Amino acid sequence: MTKQGFGKLASLSEALNILNSLVKKKSAEKIPLSGALHRTLAEDITSPISVPHFVKSAMDGFAVIAEDTFTASQTNPKQLEIIDSITAGVISKKQLSKGKCIEITTGAPLPKGADAVVMVEYTEKTTSKGSKKLTVYKGCPPGDNTIKLGSDVKKGSVVLNKGIKLNPRLIGVLSAIGITKVPVYKKPVVAYFSTGSEIVQPGSELVGGKVYDINSATITNAIVEQNCDLIDLGLVEDDLKKIKKAVIEGTQKADFVLFSGGSSLGGEDFMVQAVAELGEVLVHGIAVKPGKPVLIGKVKGKLVLGLPGYPTSALSSFYILVVPLLHRMIGMDKKDIFVNKKLSRKIASTIGRYEFLAVKVDGEYAVPVMKGSSSITTLSESDGFLEIDENTEVLNKNEIVKVRLF
Amino acid sequence: MTKQGFGKLASLSEALNILNSLVKKKSAEKIPLSGALHRTLAEDITSPISVPHFVKSAMDGFAVIAEDTFTASQTNPKQLEIIDSITAGVISKKQLSKGKCIEITTGAPLPKGADAVVMVEYTEKTTSKGSKKLTVYKGCPPGDNTIKLGSDVKKGSVVLNKGIKLNPRLIGVLSAIGITKVPVYKKPVVAYFSTGSEIVQPGSELVGGKVYDINSATITNAIVEQNCDLIDLGLVEDDLKKIKKAVIEGTQKADFVLFSGGSSLGGEDFMVQAVAELGEVLVHGIAVKPGKPVLIGKVKGKLVLGLPGYPTSALSSFYILVVPLLHRMIGMDKKDIFVNKKLSRKIASTIGRYEFLAVKVDGEYAVPVMKGSSSITTLSESDGFLEIDENTEVLNKNEIVKVRLF
Repeated sequence: MTKQGFGKLASLSEALNILNSLVKKKSAEKIPLSGALHRTLAEDITSPISVPHFVKSAMDGFAVIAEDTFTASQTNPKQLEIIDSITAGVISKKQLSKGKCIEITTGAPLPKGADAVVMVEYTEKTTSKGSKKLTVYKGCPPGDNTIKLGSDVKKGSVVLNKGIKLNPRLIGVLSAIGITKVPVYKKPVVAYFSTGSEIVQPGSELVGGKVYDINSATITNAIVEQNCDLIDLGLVEDDLKKIKKAVIEGTQKADFVLFSGGSSLGGEDFMVQAVAELGEVLVHGIAVKPGKPVLIGKVKGKLVLGLPGYPTSALSSFYILVVPLLHRMIGMDKKDIFVNKKLSRKIASTIGRYEFLAVKVDGEYAVPVMKGSSSITTLSESDGFLEIDENTEVLNKNEIVKVRLF
Repeated sequence: MTKQGFGKLASLSEALNILNSLVKKKSAEKIPLSGALHRTLAEDITSPISVPHFVKSAMDGFAVIAEDTFTASQTNPKQLEIIDSITAGVISKKQLSKGKCIEITTGAPLPKGADAVVMVEYTEKTTSKGSKKLTVYKGCPPGDNTIKLGSDVKKGSVVLNKGIKLNPRLIGVLSAIGITKVPVYKKPVVAYFSTGSEIVQPGSELVGGKVYDINSATITNAIVEQNCDLIDLGLVEDDLKKIKKAVIEGTQKADFVLFSGGSSLGGEDFMVQAVAELGEVLVHGIAVKPGKPVLIGKVKGKLVLGLPGYPTSALSSFYILVVPLLHRMIGMDKKDIFVNKKLSRKIASTIGRYEFLAVKVDGEYAVPVMKGSSSITTLSESDGFLEIDENTEVLNKNEIVKVRLF
């Protein structure tokens, strides 16, 4: 007896290894910092300056010789002579000596001779006979309200490591050390098409048996959200010649080709045939739920990766297979941050099969969205997913699980 | 005795109320779904169709009358006659009767007369004397491997509520019901400038006492990351006339004006004066750490909001004051998802002052980044922050805290 079906399924780690072997790391380019949001650093960044590069005042107030103020208090204020007034960005030409002070604003360089700043809140300014006097109501120790040279960043030290994704905070750090051009990895270029004889474009007429193409919307937007350049090959008819043309176009324009649909066991699934005729099918079927009908092939030296046709399966497979691949291409050193939640119900899984479970986050609970991979509302109702490895058969109710948010 | 200083500080909730009173909700616009990633729905979306809009096969296999297969097993297989073969998107012209079956692929509409699908894995196909036969090795109950009409989405039901931010998954749901244009709130338009006599553009010469402008980088990128349109007014000199010009330009072009620096108590801080002369200063100083020198004003009917000059304070203030305001403008129904972590050390706070504490996430721990608000590396080293309300004096070591990730 022979059964029709998938051959031996590849494990998740086997599939990931094969995927990794088929893509190259992107090269670097130098771009203006102003356009670097969400790009990934291709080199370690060393600071050309110390930050701050001078001793500065941490407060609005008066630069003093700390010793002059030691005994000052509300009941026993101390008087000093104000000999200058400087603001941030200005260097005083005067030098402090005993009994003198200089008015200073936050961020201004400490004048020569000064070793502390008294906050403006603890002082009173008066003018008598053309001379400006300061009454100090609180003493301060040396160094008080000052920021030391290089205390934040030392000149020559590495401030950011390569592989980090630039966010507003990190772009701020690069600005602080005067960087205007930044080496980043080029963006991965990903081609995508949907296929399947049953799918039609949203907006077109929905005749018997047809359904709207969902995967074009989810996968192309997920590609864009991953900060890649998208080659959108649209919806390709379930026709061997047209599919082969799309695969070729994708391999010519992109780093790799993604598609969804057409690689299950149905009679009209031309994808396996197309990839086999153009190149080589390396994997057909992986031991992952959802996502079994995944196709991994190599055409003209490039990866062609087929995601399942069911929308939930396609997007899960994108997150589990494609996202790690994209991170690898741009050398991203991604710290995974999980949300620990209690599982709201018992979940059974199958030994030998890696499982992805879509969950909704509800307060302290992760609530499995158990609508099956054919349901599109599984996508809209879930906030993230948890992974159940091949060796786990049961997750118990109230067990703490790690949820990775979408 | 008079002290120079801030007057009565506004509480965080007072400040948020005043901010909310100064901005209007954005109006809606209808845009193509293809450009709607990260936009916020301005109307509830009702489905014009049922999903699926026909009973369909959930598997590749054979559409059968379930009763015909009830007794089938490995040792006692059952034979059926194959009378047609249909793929997804195709409707069979045949009607099933007892003893017959139709080959069917995943997603194809169930033929008339069929009430279940046997998976291809449990069958064997043979041809004898021009007639195609199917051997079934496993029985199936009625409804098996089929998906019911409207089981995912009922025609006329609300699939997405207004106020939700569109992500790849939700755009997929809208595609599934055939939506091609979608009502979203217009993007908020935010003007920004940095000011301060000490700051210079990164890349320019760093003469004595000057520092590079950091806030332009952090705040403009944070504005872009919040999916707003940015009016970048650049770096404005600490000059009353130029500052007034920038404020006016901002109010003309944007929904509100943000700036940083120049609103502390230093002598050269022209911002308070500029806002007072052009309109009205409503708040100067809030009881939030970091972020005390916040300025809230109204010029030509529009909000002018001054953030502190220190980079960490400026960005914290952006997240605590501006982000909720932006969400309100586009009616965003944002579900805050916190990460629960253990605090790595004891933290003291001040009663009556709302505090923001930058933390690094390290495994199960939230590690406070205690470098002070003048440090720019506070920004690069932290992953998020926790909030300590006005009534909390101490957070204990190992206490569970809610971390909001950047």
